[in-house]
Amino acid sequence: MAQTSNRPPRIDNLQYCKWSEDIFRQMRQGGLDAVHVTIAYHETFREMVRNIEAWNLRFERHSGLIMPGRSAEDVRTAQETGRTAVFFGLQTPSPIEDDIGLVEILYTLGVRFMQLTYNNQSLLAAGCYEAEDSGITRMGRQVIREMNRVGLVIDMSHSGERSTLEAIEISERPIAITHANPASWMPARRNKSDDVLRALARSGGMLGFSLYPHHLKDKSHCTLESFCAMVAQTAELMGVDRLGIGSDLCQDQPDSVVEWMRVGRWTKEIDYGEGSREQAGFPAMPAFFRDNRDWENLGEGLRKVGFAANEVSAIMGGNWLHFYDASFGPAQSHAPTPRASTGAMA
Amino acid sequence: MAQTSNRPPRIDNLQYCKWSEDIFRQMRQGGLDAVHVTIAYHETFREMVRNIEAWNLRFERHSGLIMPGRSAEDVRTAQETGRTAVFFGLQTPSPIEDDIGLVEILYTLGVRFMQLTYNNQSLLAAGCYEAEDSGITRMGRQVIREMNRVGLVIDMSHSGERSTLEAIEISERPIAITHANPASWMPARRNKSDDVLRALARSGGMLGFSLYPHHLKDKSHCTLESFCAMVAQTAELMGVDRLGIGSDLCQDQPDSVVEWMRVGRWTKEIDYGEGSREQAGFPAMPAFFRDNRDWENLGEGLRKVGFAANEVSAIMGGNWLHFYDASFGPAQSHAPTPRASTGAMA
Repeated sequence: MAQTSNRPPRIDNLQYCKWSEDIFRQMRQGGLDAVHVTIAYHETFREMVRNIEAWNLRFERHSGLIMPGRSAEDVRTAQETGRTAVFFGLQTPSPIEDDIGLVEILYTLGVRFMQLTYNNQSLLAAGCYEAEDSGITRMGRQVIREMNRVGLVIDMSHSGERSTLEAIEISERPIAITHANPASWMPARRNKSDDVLRALARSGGMLGFSLYPHHLKDKSHCTLESFCAMVAQTAELMGVDRLGIGSDLCQDQPDSVVEWMRVGRWTKEIDYGEGSREQAGFPAMPAFFRDNRDWENLGEGLRKVGFAANEVSAIMGGNWLHFYDASFGPAQSHAPTPRASTGAMA
Repeated sequence: MAQTSNRPPRIDNLQYCKWSEDIFRQMRQGGLDAVHVTIAYHETFREMVRNIEAWNLRFERHSGLIMPGRSAEDVRTAQETGRTAVFFGLQTPSPIEDDIGLVEILYTLGVRFMQLTYNNQSLLAAGCYEAEDSGITRMGRQVIREMNRVGLVIDMSHSGERSTLEAIEISERPIAITHANPASWMPARRNKSDDVLRALARSGGMLGFSLYPHHLKDKSHCTLESFCAMVAQTAELMGVDRLGIGSDLCQDQPDSVVEWMRVGRWTKEIDYGEGSREQAGFPAMPAFFRDNRDWENLGEGLRKVGFAANEVSAIMGGNWLHFYDASFGPAQSHAPTPRASTGAMA
């Protein structure tokens, strides 16, 4: 596929594949200019660093296909050189251990997104599977301030309702829900209430729509039409500018990995999370988005439900690029970042 | 002291003080534009990261006096903004553990110099206190190549003679001896033979003259005249372009720190290193260089032994700046870096 540097970028703001040259080639075939990849779930700091070492080796070995992503400018460089810029993120805060100084260390190592909690209570906030959500903790408030200072984005994809609303309120800079859908469309525990989505939009935050079957109406049988109609409805609620994609693609991963995500080292029992004893493994992706070669399908589906060409481009990556521009690194002024107003759908 | 951005920079390529606002202010009084500081001796990777966290806090709290140094350009920025740029270095390779992937991680975290060994045998090379020096190890060869690739400078200040000569030979890019003096002037185990100094100069490497009393003729009683005459003699041997300062200033450190340097965790006995049972602690600095306020003394001393003004500037920092320009980060071409020829003293 020929790349032109003037076209808007295509960005997927959450993937956790079993990385390989095949997948990097598929990203190029799908015209993906940037991807935010999970580099740790329950890892310690040292284990996370080992995962970055593995990425460094990939960057060295596949330098014609991928490059390290640290800034919005890197997305533009990737577009110009026909590569995919890879941004690092964490799905739990366990790599910062109990040490706030590690927030800046993570930033220096290239981490740009961090969830304050996965499904459980963390040192910082409550996850969406806890019976009680007591909101942002004392350390959580300190870590939010430090993440704001260095420009590491707060991600509340797996957090409980109260913790999410408080993070939006406490953070001086817009936050992200990198991979989730509206609960009004598919009432999964991981999907988000209209209250959360409205507060997120008011604060200038971003929602990345998930294509992970447990977050989709009819799961693996979800249709492109249903998915895109949901996007259009969410645009009415939040404004087009606040929307992107965070596919949660876990291509080629063995089922042992989804067990690691859910169980980590916190229990000796099996926790099925969004799955069940009968469906314990990774579910099949929906037919309209099997892997990175299917990005064009999404674009077509969005056009068919009435989005204008510029709106499709915004949802497919332009909005994430603006968010990257504003969010990574220290804020341009020392004053609190103004909250962006919600753009109306055209 | 008024700063002008056109004057050549003043650089000290080795200090390990007990850092404080007082010392940062003395650096400004002495007009020091950049300093290479030791951030680890026998620390593990995680312990070294904690030391970087402590530096991040200093950068945040004393942002008017110091700034992180990552590139030669940062020295120029420090000059223009009246601050001292702080570059990180390691005196042993223990923070890379047994893991070559940590070399690039160190670089990303800002480390710019690493000794392949301290006084003892390491996984990479032999130190100057070992009875046998079997040269660069198998892992050492791999790590040298990786350090060359990412642009992390090899420092052989504490290494044995054979290991040092082999590192000079094996490295595709010039190396440094950041803090030592010629053994012909002061026959300390840590000082370097003329063979080493000649090979270092031929390869385009740098020698940083030490002001640590155990490396000085007459130790704490060394005179400025004797020190500067030694510099002039070394310029005859190596060429002025290969010379800089690496004072080894350990200001305000308690004697427990010199014990940590010497003993680490490798023995339960006391090893006195360059000291002795009678003189186990830090020796008193020579009268002409008590701390960072005495840089002007050095300049005067060098002029008095016959160096021209531009040569004094080169030794006081200009040469290190050129070395930083060529040495930090990936090499400009993929071809091996040409070895610089030795400049003759004017």
